[in-house]
Amino acid sequence: MPLTPLDTDSYSFLGPAGTFTEAALAQVPDAAGKRWRAVNNVGEALADVVSGRSVAAMIAIENSVDGGVSATQDALASVPNLRIVGEYLVPVNFVLVARPGTTLAEVNTVNAHPVAYAQCRAWLEKAVPGHGYIPASSNVAAAAALLENSQADAAIAPPGIDTHHPVVVLATNIGDNPNAVTRFVLVSRTVTLPEPTGADKTTLIIELPDDRSGALLEMLEQFATRGVNLSLIQSRPIGDALGRYRFVIDADGHILDERMADALLGLRRFSPNVTFLGSYPRADKQAIEFTSRFDDEIFIEARDWLRGLIDGEPAA
Amino acid sequence: MPLTPLDTDSYSFLGPAGTFTEAALAQVPDAAGKRWRAVNNVGEALADVVSGRSVAAMIAIENSVDGGVSATQDALASVPNLRIVGEYLVPVNFVLVARPGTTLAEVNTVNAHPVAYAQCRAWLEKAVPGHGYIPASSNVAAAAALLENSQADAAIAPPGIDTHHPVVVLATNIGDNPNAVTRFVLVSRTVTLPEPTGADKTTLIIELPDDRSGALLEMLEQFATRGVNLSLIQSRPIGDALGRYRFVIDADGHILDERMADALLGLRRFSPNVTFLGSYPRADKQAIEFTSRFDDEIFIEARDWLRGLIDGEPAA
Amino acid sequence: MPLTPLDTDSYSFLGPAGTFTEAALAQVPDAAGKRWRAVNNVGEALADVVSGRSVAAMIAIENSVDGGVSATQDALASVPNLRIVGEYLVPVNFVLVARPGTTLAEVNTVNAHPVAYAQCRAWLEKAVPGHGYIPASSNVAAAAALLENSQADAAIAPPGIDTHHPVVVLATNIGDNPNAVTRFVLVSRTVTLPEPTGADKTTLIIELPDDRSGALLEMLEQFATRGVNLSLIQSRPIGDALGRYRFVIDADGHILDERMADALLGLRRFSPNVTFLGSYPRADKQAIEFTSRFDDEIFIEARDWLRGLIDGEPAA
Amino acid sequence: MPLTPLDTDSYSFLGPAGTFTEAALAQVPDAAGKRWRAVNNVGEALADVVSGRSVAAMIAIENSVDGGVSATQDALASVPNLRIVGEYLVPVNFVLVARPGTTLAEVNTVNAHPVAYAQCRAWLEKAVPGHGYIPASSNVAAAAALLENSQADAAIAPPGIDTHHPVVVLATNIGDNPNAVTRFVLVSRTVTLPEPTGADKTTLIIELPDDRSGALLEMLEQFATRGVNLSLIQSRPIGDALGRYRFVIDADGHILDERMADALLGLRRFSPNVTFLGSYPRADKQAIEFTSRFDDEIFIEARDWLRGLIDGEPAA
Repeated sequence: MPLTPLDTDSYSFLGPAGTFTEAALAQVPDAAGKRWRAVNNVGEALADVVSGRSVAAMIAIENSVDGGVSATQDALASVPNLRIVGEYLVPVNFVLVARPGTTLAEVNTVNAHPVAYAQCRAWLEKAVPGHGYIPASSNVAAAAALLENSQADAAIAPPGIDTHHPVVVLATNIGDNPNAVTRFVLVSRTVTLPEPTGADKTTLIIELPDDRSGALLEMLEQFATRGVNLSLIQSRPIGDALGRYRFVIDADGHILDERMADALLGLRRFSPNVTFLGSYPRADKQAIEFTSRFDDEIFIEARDWLRGLIDGEPAA
Repeated sequence: MPLTPLDTDSYSFLGPAGTFTEAALAQVPDAAGKRWRAVNNVGEALADVVSGRSVAAMIAIENSVDGGVSATQDALASVPNLRIVGEYLVPVNFVLVARPGTTLAEVNTVNAHPVAYAQCRAWLEKAVPGHGYIPASSNVAAAAALLENSQADAAIAPPGIDTHHPVVVLATNIGDNPNAVTRFVLVSRTVTLPEPTGADKTTLIIELPDDRSGALLEMLEQFATRGVNLSLIQSRPIGDALGRYRFVIDADGHILDERMADALLGLRRFSPNVTFLGSYPRADKQAIEFTSRFDDEIFIEARDWLRGLIDGEPAA
Repeated sequence: MPLTPLDTDSYSFLGPAGTFTEAALAQVPDAAGKRWRAVNNVGEALADVVSGRSVAAMIAIENSVDGGVSATQDALASVPNLRIVGEYLVPVNFVLVARPGTTLAEVNTVNAHPVAYAQCRAWLEKAVPGHGYIPASSNVAAAAALLENSQADAAIAPPGIDTHHPVVVLATNIGDNPNAVTRFVLVSRTVTLPEPTGADKTTLIIELPDDRSGALLEMLEQFATRGVNLSLIQSRPIGDALGRYRFVIDADGHILDERMADALLGLRRFSPNVTFLGSYPRADKQAIEFTSRFDDEIFIEARDWLRGLIDGEPAA
Repeated sequence: MPLTPLDTDSYSFLGPAGTFTEAALAQVPDAAGKRWRAVNNVGEALADVVSGRSVAAMIAIENSVDGGVSATQDALASVPNLRIVGEYLVPVNFVLVARPGTTLAEVNTVNAHPVAYAQCRAWLEKAVPGHGYIPASSNVAAAAALLENSQADAAIAPPGIDTHHPVVVLATNIGDNPNAVTRFVLVSRTVTLPEPTGADKTTLIIELPDDRSGALLEMLEQFATRGVNLSLIQSRPIGDALGRYRFVIDADGHILDERMADALLGLRRFSPNVTFLGSYPRADKQAIEFTSRFDDEIFIEARDWLRGLIDGEPAA
């Protein structure tokens, strides 16, 4: 595939305008004033990055209610040469919208993206008992379809949808969990590491060795014995057979932290396939906590000591 | 909720007729000749079981390509008093269907359940490049909609759909992975344990203790130190905040196997919340392998020895 | 061997009168006013217990400077049907004694039990530089020999030796470590368990499975996963070949503590040979500390839960 | 202490001539034709090495029946700047000797080094029932004393003693364990590492961190997670208080093996005090076995991969 010259002025995101993904992209200072390409799915977004059509893509990776976004995790596992360079959190809230003139009492059928529908289900069963459901391909598309020939009477959409489309808001805050939040990552083709900030996260995709009982335990020990905590661990089927998994891992710390670098060495030796997806600052900017046993100096001192033994220096 | 008298003649499944779930239910000898209730989602299926409207429900729990079915896993974690009593495998294969008279070359827009669409994507991009996509609520609904006023020209559907609906098959075996299989479980309200068969599986949902680093490692050790292998481990967000997970586990063996019973004791002591979803025969009928160190007799002998020490018996 | 009728009035100890072992026996209330049999070595002491000639024997098991007493550990590993019923600590201190009329300046050769000699060596090299050394079979025998035809000019002996023998004390507190202490255990043939006191210790001798790499790790995990701390772990050769070991273990807690009982079950299943030498109150009476995760109630509740599952009780 | 100029012509050993230690020294090709200094104990032997009076010292470190030689282990833990450069095995066998003219039936009292006495005890109790015992400072000294004014009638001595002293052999092979063997090490001041041979051993002395429950487990994991097997683990009291231990470890492999080097790094980071006593060829010349997962290349490849990530190289 001939590479499109890298377009450093373009960022891709799951569109259309008004999605939560767009809200995440709005948090990126470097993206301000650049061209934003709305795409239809995570595959297109990553293809834009790989081909150079965009300098980076914003994609949803985890939702506090629904869990990991499988499509994203599987795409990151299979598309090579990608790096996560930033993490962004967007509170997830929903409104119920309809064509002007419709009242809540008149709603029989609801159009919604399946994930949004799942997150508003308890509210809907109370407020619109016995409603019918039509799935949509995105939160914004659900609302937009109302204005075309959709059979639905109402749609679940992100707050602010009425600034993009001529719909009326029938109800706000209809999500079942008021603290729901979606985690997005900005993905690029760069391989230059961002500087460690003390509040970093490292994302990895790790395959377990075949048919070795206890392999998951052994993988986790690679982190535990270096004092590295995990904030996410998610199994995904490799896809070739039932029972074969890879793991998506978010680990506290930066590849330039000694304890993380040593854990990566251990993982590389252990796993038939480990993908480093990047070390980048955490969205919540919370400094990583770890015991002083795993300070950088401890690692450096041990290396000096070993080198001294090997070089035949007399003990101090 | 007043309980409906248990209807031992009714089985619920994700309908309509023709779905893979119905194919799974067709594998259950006891369900032959009974009434089969087609429902719209896993929540309804489990509600039927809880209320007694059905004696059992067949639900999809894992797909070899897509992974765990989140809706099922989350429902099993939150609806109490359920037990898995059987496991069934259905090869997942797809056909592309259209209204009679349509040719493949004429297809522009495809209607499909999102999971099916994801599994046929590579084929579609080759065979129907530049196609549009309309999501459907089930594999069968996608085909049925063609006969109503759907804007789609074709639908992805299970093989055999043309025996239920007047559609024509444009292409067969369009799934990207020829070995794809979906795993279903039959869920009931019974609490009587099936007999161990030597080829059993135990399903658990386990919450980790809060804020204890290494808790996942410790949970896995409860299995490893008793020689119990896992065939599935899947994290699911508890849903109240990012970073809090419960784990869905399939472990090799039966609760009446000594090593499994001992592992369950360890898990119950360790976890703030462990749900036992049942011990039941594996669909593949493969006998569980474990080293003789973890035979039942080893556990029984150790208990006798300890009792002797406590009762003050002299050593033999 | 025909058993001597149990002589409940007799206690054996490593003699002669004046040894540290006698001082340990003096701490046992039940032994007050009974007959004390002075024996020559630990083998004789245990033989007295096995044959019933004595109701119990006091033997040294560990020294804070020298470590475990190998002869005792090996004897406990090979003589069956013994139980430790109590633990006693004796501060270990030494004096240098001589025949009346001798001054420190005149001392050239010193008679001493090898362990005592090792513990006073630094003092001797300073106070009696260039001295010669003659080994003795006990601390008291070293002093007693001065009054026979010993070629030594002085002897290392326990404080108070001059009340048993007509010797003069040339120097006191000559041990190199002022905090040295020896731990003794009282051993009997009883198999009735003493009541738990909350400040108990359990002594075990555990053989590792052959040729399984990581077996020691696995053995220690039996304790760690139940929150049981160890205060002593000592390897001893089994004796048949280099590289084959058994381990002498002192674990915090009582066999009637649930976590200890469960650890014992795990050890019995794991080890080809585990000897329970008793649960008994610690000499220092310090209450055992353990996290509340390993409380008795946690174990009991888990057992009730498992029984409920197996008996088919509906969830609460 | 002013250093004596290093005497490369002198080797120290526990004398006098005829001891097992001398037999071990006879196995060292480099020592042939040099001056052999007989010393009285391990402390003197090591002092010779430290001061440069001898180029090396042969000392006993473990006996297959008695276990680790505490005096040696403690001396190696406290004398700095020593290195083990070789390992030698000597079968341990004993004879009973007497003054010419004495018969076995006439023996009442036996002179013996305590370790030798312990190893011949079963034979003695059968052959010389009711015998008295006088301890000696070495196996050879026991025999030599017969010719002075010893009160003993016989002595336990190494085979061949009658070539050094005018005694007669009353019985041979009197050791209770026919396979008994003592392991000796040659200790020097050199810090140059011998080349790896593929059949090497590394000796370490490791202190555990204070008051951290599970510290021993954590120490052992440093070896286990790198596939390094241990052939010796022995606890020794640090000596300042009951319950504080250091561990003497013999690990399979050489410090220049990647997996051993990595284990040493982990140990250094973990332990407040780790002493490297050398990597040297095993006496039995048996090649070390380890799984190919821990090959040198695996470690080197992982380091290259990590360096590539850090240097920002694009994935291959």
